[in-house]
Amino acid sequence: MPATEFEIIERYFRQPVQRDDVVLSVGDDGAVVAVPPGKQLVVSTDALVAGVHFPENTSAQDIARKSVAVNLSDLAAMGAQPAWLTLALTLPRVDESWLEKFARDFIDTAAQYGAELIGGDISEGSLNISVTAMGLVDADAVMRRDRAQAGDAIYVTGTLGDAAIGLALLQQDSINDDSSAWLAGRLNRPEPRVDFALLAARCCDCAIDISDGLAADLGHVLDASGCGADVRLDSIPLSPQALAHFNAAGGIDWDVILSGGDDYELCVVTAPANEAQLVQAARQSGTRLSRVGEIMRRPGLRFLDAGGETRALANRGFEHFSS
Amino acid sequence: MPATEFEIIERYFRQPVQRDDVVLSVGDDGAVVAVPPGKQLVVSTDALVAGVHFPENTSAQDIARKSVAVNLSDLAAMGAQPAWLTLALTLPRVDESWLEKFARDFIDTAAQYGAELIGGDISEGSLNISVTAMGLVDADAVMRRDRAQAGDAIYVTGTLGDAAIGLALLQQDSINDDSSAWLAGRLNRPEPRVDFALLAARCCDCAIDISDGLAADLGHVLDASGCGADVRLDSIPLSPQALAHFNAAGGIDWDVILSGGDDYELCVVTAPANEAQLVQAARQSGTRLSRVGEIMRRPGLRFLDAGGETRALANRGFEHFSS
Repeated sequence: MPATEFEIIERYFRQPVQRDDVVLSVGDDGAVVAVPPGKQLVVSTDALVAGVHFPENTSAQDIARKSVAVNLSDLAAMGAQPAWLTLALTLPRVDESWLEKFARDFIDTAAQYGAELIGGDISEGSLNISVTAMGLVDADAVMRRDRAQAGDAIYVTGTLGDAAIGLALLQQDSINDDSSAWLAGRLNRPEPRVDFALLAARCCDCAIDISDGLAADLGHVLDASGCGADVRLDSIPLSPQALAHFNAAGGIDWDVILSGGDDYELCVVTAPANEAQLVQAARQSGTRLSRVGEIMRRPGLRFLDAGGETRALANRGFEHFSS
Repeated sequence: MPATEFEIIERYFRQPVQRDDVVLSVGDDGAVVAVPPGKQLVVSTDALVAGVHFPENTSAQDIARKSVAVNLSDLAAMGAQPAWLTLALTLPRVDESWLEKFARDFIDTAAQYGAELIGGDISEGSLNISVTAMGLVDADAVMRRDRAQAGDAIYVTGTLGDAAIGLALLQQDSINDDSSAWLAGRLNRPEPRVDFALLAARCCDCAIDISDGLAADLGHVLDASGCGADVRLDSIPLSPQALAHFNAAGGIDWDVILSGGDDYELCVVTAPANEAQLVQAARQSGTRLSRVGEIMRRPGLRFLDAGGETRALANRGFEHFSS
């Protein structure tokens, strides 16, 4: 029975090399990869902590997929093609069944987006999955959060609020039909918008992952770009499942939708001249895309209701350490 | 008072860019860097967990320095020039004084070796510091663990066993003079052998970081290379402080020296033709270097005492999850 760090790595995480730019993979002090000429390297790191980023009873498969997906979502927001991943896995104990499932789904999810696990580290401690994702972009073709300009249109992918509702339902032990299961799946099995992002990056230079909620993350774009935005609440895309949930609950909760977080969707900001191409990118990649507002010269992020009135939000997004 | 993840990053971790290959640093969904033509990228990830990799009462400065050093030691073992670091920091609570010290020493230690923090992530949870270090090597000039050949000489840098003795003294609350403080410093403030490694890589193609102890890590070289080794115990370099400790304790404990771990030293294996140049690399970088044995065709790692007898070790190195 495998027991040590080395045996775990050999048994579950060492795989035949898939990408021909991987010179040396899992099993040495470091991995070696070749960045193609003309490409720049995009690097993103995100840790998942049990009980903070996912409920304690989340399956090994869902933890694995989410730990890959949240990092690939960051690469997508930069317009980068996923290439390589490293994993620092901290585990309270060796559970072979858990490890086998986790490793398989981690490697499979990465492969689904063309990325490969090239190295990592396994330690004892409370469950913590820290992933570093590396991707490739054409030199100086990255999408950044400081490139919004007054007059630009604001788009979001997918639907917002599903993951936050899913979390609430899980916490209430209320996953009891297809609709609630779908909402919980949006929390536990996010799908990074990689295909869309690679097409969008050809015509847009400003995007952000909105996993802390649109309010907080669009706020970062505005802060970095030195401008404001008007967002129309009736343009915010909601899933039928979220709408049904809110109808049953007595009304739409905009705080959940705009600040609940954990939607691994993208917000893309683009000049009017590029909107048609952006819409085409969404169609080509089979991605729902909604135009939700415009960048304004006047500072501040305003959410406008159907009557054009500004609506205040109780909070601005998920933030660690805010109480 | 800063409280959120964003404020912590802005206040403590965002720095003016130092390296001109950093296109975009801390503050977006990912960092962007440019790998120079002709170079390959070396990537290494190591996590430090409180109570496992360092005693719970270790200072913020020592944790910061160690989290950088252990990763740069891996890059050194590959012969890579340190370039960029990402940090996934999980903290139980916001302690401004701790964070200020940690961030400053993390950034300063990286800068000491020419490396720069380019991104990361801060989460709530038990203290866990996961670092990914990226370095640069000339294409196909990396030092690997699968390149040892029968007849090669085996060298180690520095002195062995100090950190394991330091840990034992700390656990016994016996840091009470210069000698014990120096030994504890070897545990808490390791110095990666970067300068030496960059020179050694010009003449050697096989090296490993021996932070799990020479027995385990040289064992990995032998396994990967398909050969054996004879190591002479009377050639193993010991510090005067370690010798004094063993003299007071009634004799040398080879298990502590060869399997205690946490010595961030390198083991370099090289053909006889390159030994003079390797010795010169040590001299030029001011690094103690000791020739401790030879690679043999016969499998197995044998530790020989002064009489030429093989000495058995009780355990083969620090391994997570071994009990």
